[in-house]
Amino acid sequence: MKRWRLELIALGLATAGVTWLNAQHAPSAGRIRGFAAASSAAEAARERELKAAPSPKIAEADFDVMTAEPHHAGSPYEIKLADYVGDRFKEFGLEVTRYEYSVLLPWPGERRIDILGPDPVKLQVEEEKLRGDQWADKPGILPAYNAYSPSGDVTGDIVYVNFGVPADYETLARLGIDVKGKIVLARYGGSWRGIKPKVAAEHGAIACIIYSDPHEDGYFQGDVFPNGPFRGPGMIQRGSVMDMPRYPGDPSTPGRPSKPGVERVPMDKIETFAPIPVEPISYRDGEEILRRLKGPVAPEAWRGALPITYHIGPGPANVHMKLQMDYGQRRLIDVVGKITGAVAPDEWIVIGSHRDAWTFGASDSVSGHVSMNSVARAMGEMLKKGWRPRRTILFVSWDGEEQGLLGSTEWVEDLATELSAKVAVYVNRDAGAGGTTFSSSAVHSLTPFAHELAQSISIEGTSKTLFDTWLERSRDQSPARDGHPMLKLPTVGALGSGSDYTAFLDHVGIPSMDMGLSGRGGDGTYHSTYDNPDWFKKYIDPQFKYSVLAAQVTGVALLRLADAELLPMDYESYGNQILEYIRDIEQQATTASAADAKRIDFAGMKSAAEAFTKAGAALRQRGDTLLAGSSTSSGQALAEINHRLMMAERDLIEPAGLPDRPWYRHVIYAPGLYTGYGVKTIPGVREAVDAGNDARAAEQATVVIRALRRATKTLQGN
Amino acid sequence: MKRWRLELIALGLATAGVTWLNAQHAPSAGRIRGFAAASSAAEAARERELKAAPSPKIAEADFDVMTAEPHHAGSPYEIKLADYVGDRFKEFGLEVTRYEYSVLLPWPGERRIDILGPDPVKLQVEEEKLRGDQWADKPGILPAYNAYSPSGDVTGDIVYVNFGVPADYETLARLGIDVKGKIVLARYGGSWRGIKPKVAAEHGAIACIIYSDPHEDGYFQGDVFPNGPFRGPGMIQRGSVMDMPRYPGDPSTPGRPSKPGVERVPMDKIETFAPIPVEPISYRDGEEILRRLKGPVAPEAWRGALPITYHIGPGPANVHMKLQMDYGQRRLIDVVGKITGAVAPDEWIVIGSHRDAWTFGASDSVSGHVSMNSVARAMGEMLKKGWRPRRTILFVSWDGEEQGLLGSTEWVEDLATELSAKVAVYVNRDAGAGGTTFSSSAVHSLTPFAHELAQSISIEGTSKTLFDTWLERSRDQSPARDGHPMLKLPTVGALGSGSDYTAFLDHVGIPSMDMGLSGRGGDGTYHSTYDNPDWFKKYIDPQFKYSVLAAQVTGVALLRLADAELLPMDYESYGNQILEYIRDIEQQATTASAADAKRIDFAGMKSAAEAFTKAGAALRQRGDTLLAGSSTSSGQALAEINHRLMMAERDLIEPAGLPDRPWYRHVIYAPGLYTGYGVKTIPGVREAVDAGNDARAAEQATVVIRALRRATKTLQGN
Repeated sequence: MKRWRLELIALGLATAGVTWLNAQHAPSAGRIRGFAAASSAAEAARERELKAAPSPKIAEADFDVMTAEPHHAGSPYEIKLADYVGDRFKEFGLEVTRYEYSVLLPWPGERRIDILGPDPVKLQVEEEKLRGDQWADKPGILPAYNAYSPSGDVTGDIVYVNFGVPADYETLARLGIDVKGKIVLARYGGSWRGIKPKVAAEHGAIACIIYSDPHEDGYFQGDVFPNGPFRGPGMIQRGSVMDMPRYPGDPSTPGRPSKPGVERVPMDKIETFAPIPVEPISYRDGEEILRRLKGPVAPEAWRGALPITYHIGPGPANVHMKLQMDYGQRRLIDVVGKITGAVAPDEWIVIGSHRDAWTFGASDSVSGHVSMNSVARAMGEMLKKGWRPRRTILFVSWDGEEQGLLGSTEWVEDLATELSAKVAVYVNRDAGAGGTTFSSSAVHSLTPFAHELAQSISIEGTSKTLFDTWLERSRDQSPARDGHPMLKLPTVGALGSGSDYTAFLDHVGIPSMDMGLSGRGGDGTYHSTYDNPDWFKKYIDPQFKYSVLAAQVTGVALLRLADAELLPMDYESYGNQILEYIRDIEQQATTASAADAKRIDFAGMKSAAEAFTKAGAALRQRGDTLLAGSSTSSGQALAEINHRLMMAERDLIEPAGLPDRPWYRHVIYAPGLYTGYGVKTIPGVREAVDAGNDARAAEQATVVIRALRRATKTLQGN
Repeated sequence: MKRWRLELIALGLATAGVTWLNAQHAPSAGRIRGFAAASSAAEAARERELKAAPSPKIAEADFDVMTAEPHHAGSPYEIKLADYVGDRFKEFGLEVTRYEYSVLLPWPGERRIDILGPDPVKLQVEEEKLRGDQWADKPGILPAYNAYSPSGDVTGDIVYVNFGVPADYETLARLGIDVKGKIVLARYGGSWRGIKPKVAAEHGAIACIIYSDPHEDGYFQGDVFPNGPFRGPGMIQRGSVMDMPRYPGDPSTPGRPSKPGVERVPMDKIETFAPIPVEPISYRDGEEILRRLKGPVAPEAWRGALPITYHIGPGPANVHMKLQMDYGQRRLIDVVGKITGAVAPDEWIVIGSHRDAWTFGASDSVSGHVSMNSVARAMGEMLKKGWRPRRTILFVSWDGEEQGLLGSTEWVEDLATELSAKVAVYVNRDAGAGGTTFSSSAVHSLTPFAHELAQSISIEGTSKTLFDTWLERSRDQSPARDGHPMLKLPTVGALGSGSDYTAFLDHVGIPSMDMGLSGRGGDGTYHSTYDNPDWFKKYIDPQFKYSVLAAQVTGVALLRLADAELLPMDYESYGNQILEYIRDIEQQATTASAADAKRIDFAGMKSAAEAFTKAGAALRQRGDTLLAGSSTSSGQALAEINHRLMMAERDLIEPAGLPDRPWYRHVIYAPGLYTGYGVKTIPGVREAVDAGNDARAAEQATVVIRALRRATKTLQGN
């Protein structure tokens, strides 16, 4: 469900500052981070081999199979694709295991939205089938709906709420407009969609309709399909509205795998269903409603690109909305292909990409999965030539990501103990083979690793590396201005949610990294029927060269992580970033109330983060010294350091979890309760400060201090 | 042709800073600026009488006559209205004189724009007649055209150039798009319209089409007529494209009145015609062209509110455009009503409002003219009761303002010597009875006067004065931010061009002041057929209460200027503002090239401005002392000071004029060569610095220094 473009817009806010990055520690010349000088040369040769391996032709053939039919979670073709991916992994020489779960998953039944007046009309509701389009007519396409909406039958006047985020309701309050008993109409964008019904319900709305304004991904951005890659008037964005910031995965089994015999929460006790009925519509339908609103003209920032005057209402547009959701147990299959490590088989590097899609998933996420397959194939070839990775590598094909990170969450919950003991790094590949612009979000111990990775991948036919395109994009998003000098390094985003790293990082404390390639303007068919091969081959990656590029960067990342003598984490970088987050929250708290801010132990947090930073620097130095030495007896010492580098992240897990959402346990990273995909760093303290709850902020500060001290001890080897 | 909303947006840029305003000198308590304590009470009583006089009923009856038929310059009804206004003035007890000129004025003949391909279509070109609208069917409406376009018959591919200002052509250059041999399509806004064909021609375009994008004054802003006040799809903005920043008025008689026997420039030697054919169209027609463009998608800031993807071209839209302009001599009548002053008959206060309109001119400018008529009527009543103003007051009804400030320019050129000797202040009233939000632009010696004037007018039914609404608006336009504290006083704009003060101030050096009321969102019918009584009475001033408010503020301004014992100019304020302008230009020049900036005598300018400021303060103090004294022999001394206050402004006229445009002679104020309505302060130096011509800037600095020294001597009485 990844949406790079929108995700990245949030990064400017998520990373408070990056000045320290310019001072980050780099390995000596000729050395690859984590490798001794001697082994760096061999690694470089292997990387060259791996980068040469991916074939656009094979990628396209693979892509054609994986996009041939609709394949949402639980559908027949998704189950067939589990066999297909398993067979490929076997063919490449990987050891394959399937993990099956039975999850609570709603499919759409009857959906209707009728404008009762003025000028009654029945909305189309169904996604438009473009005439002559061979894909839109395929049987088995899941109609447009928002997963985990309740069923409902309501009638009410409409209020237009812009993006439907908390700030929009502040504007409505100033205008004296109440949504109580009303149906809100929100446009997509500005937040993760699940926030819209949540905030609407908190303000008393009885239902929520979400439409795609052409301003965001339609004709305002560029020509619409089939004349261009952008969203046409009848195309609809599907998507989950599960309350994932509370917990992702099967709503009936929080913290437990959805396997036979496991305890399930009864339907009426489930906390992550959307609180009110929600339905997505096209802008063709959205315009019908908006045209019928009166009341104040919407503020300029609320106006989209439809050829109308945007009014807020309430009404007179009066709408009857009926949704019948078919909740049932569906079959979910994760497929794992394993290469067992030669030296450290119990240190795992896991890479995952989701196989399921809302419809055909050409971009989201077959493009990512295909590039992962290319890496598995290339490594299979290397295995045949005698290579074995130092660590164990797991390739995972996730199911049910779109509805709520189902496959990854259930799997992590299933194997939590083993994963916690063994996984060094999780690498995520969602959609993201759509151009030459690289981006990455990661735990900040991996910041220097991510930068060096991007530097090592050249873009064919140009003199640029992925580092260059990433830096350009970062500069566009955080331009130099008063008090903000020009960025010297690309911005590594903090991980929020919205893809399959969530359970790894936020529930178990496994260092994680996400990455993607974009730039071809290909957001317009997001979660619609038209994210299909025709669209993708015409506008996004006609020659599968971005697929190859994505395989190269993914493959090199995996190879480095799996083969490095020393895991490439830098806890000094991490600590410096944490210090920036603390200062940022302190400033926010002080601005709100200097007196209240004094009740929160910012000094203690900073001191704990400084000790963590110092321990990180010392450990890195110790590792570098070992790598520089020629002693063959250093193996045991390196293994011991690697263990500390793996485990320090686990210490940032607070067993009791975050306030009101115990599934989320990481003290540094979590999706925001009111941002969804968007990260809130040091969430326990920050969200308490946001809410003006300084007692809770003070208590959460002690939690953070304890966690940082645990991690510091681990880094110190105590 | 005044357009307050757009004009005001430019002010933030035009006034470099206003911090000094907060320190401006105020008269002692109970005193009205320019009046002794004793006479202040009498003045206050007269003001109360005058403010009570205007009647909404009479204003509406007056308005109904003046908007009954189309009355563009040279039309039969405009000539009838000259009689009507003259008769009213006579009826009020004024001495009436008519001034007739014969001016070169084009009326539109054949106009056609055909899209030859792809998908050929003939554009409507004519303004839409809304079904059942009684006004649109009136005979005699001047079709939509741009006055002073040449005739032409051209065919070419279209390039969309956004607003068509110089910065837009820099963007085109970066994109590698050339307009040479092409027809440009520009949207209204971003500059005065005459700049668009001028800049297009400089880049080699062969014609210019201007359309009204709904983003600027159509449905994006609010509901369109007849459902709201904004511009509908078929409504067209007429307007002049004469090169007024070169010289306004009859193009064939620059600097001379268009009277029989005067020397006229032959048609082929005239410099102020638009250089290429220009035609305005509606957004209904504009969309037809834009839909047919390909090439790069326009940058986000270039995209309007039409439901299309904005492409730049060139082409494939290929257009044939034919314009036949009927150039002829037309009859122009200015009507002057005079009240001769009792004490100082040779000190004149002139107020003017234009009578002509593009069609009915309900807002532009009958609303302003009617409020001027109300003041004349009220003063007539006061005359009957025995009041006589200290100074002479002239009420002027201008003709031909819309096509190029024809009536005011010819009149000022006609009477230049007398006006230069006698006029103390010119007060302009264009459109501007459209709400309670007051704004004023003026020479900066009148800044404190304008503030005190606004403070003295209460808004009925509220606890606010016009000062409050003006301050709110100024703060909205220049919000507090880093380095810019919250404004404490409203911004008095610098006078650019676009209305009838131009010849007074820029050609002769007469202290001028413009003012208006807005806020009812009434820009949507600007220069269209729908600036008519139905629209005005439905959306702008249904009860003629803003007309009354406008009459009150205009009347009080006039009364104070005419009756003050001491003219209310403050040359200290003026000097401080000039110093800010100099510092601003110096900073710009230094940023561009510190070495070049050293060649310009900024120190000399600052020193001259400081002496001017000091002399202004001393003169004000001397006047205040005289006013405070009870000596009856102070009359002669006051008269002498008043003469200096009148004449110091004349000294800011450089007889040789500005570089390349000798008609414009004021060294502090001029419309920008590439901004049109927008002012360029200290234009000789600033525009040379803009152009990187430091030799010219250095030379112009000496001109400014000389002028400031002349004025300083006058203020000092030397």
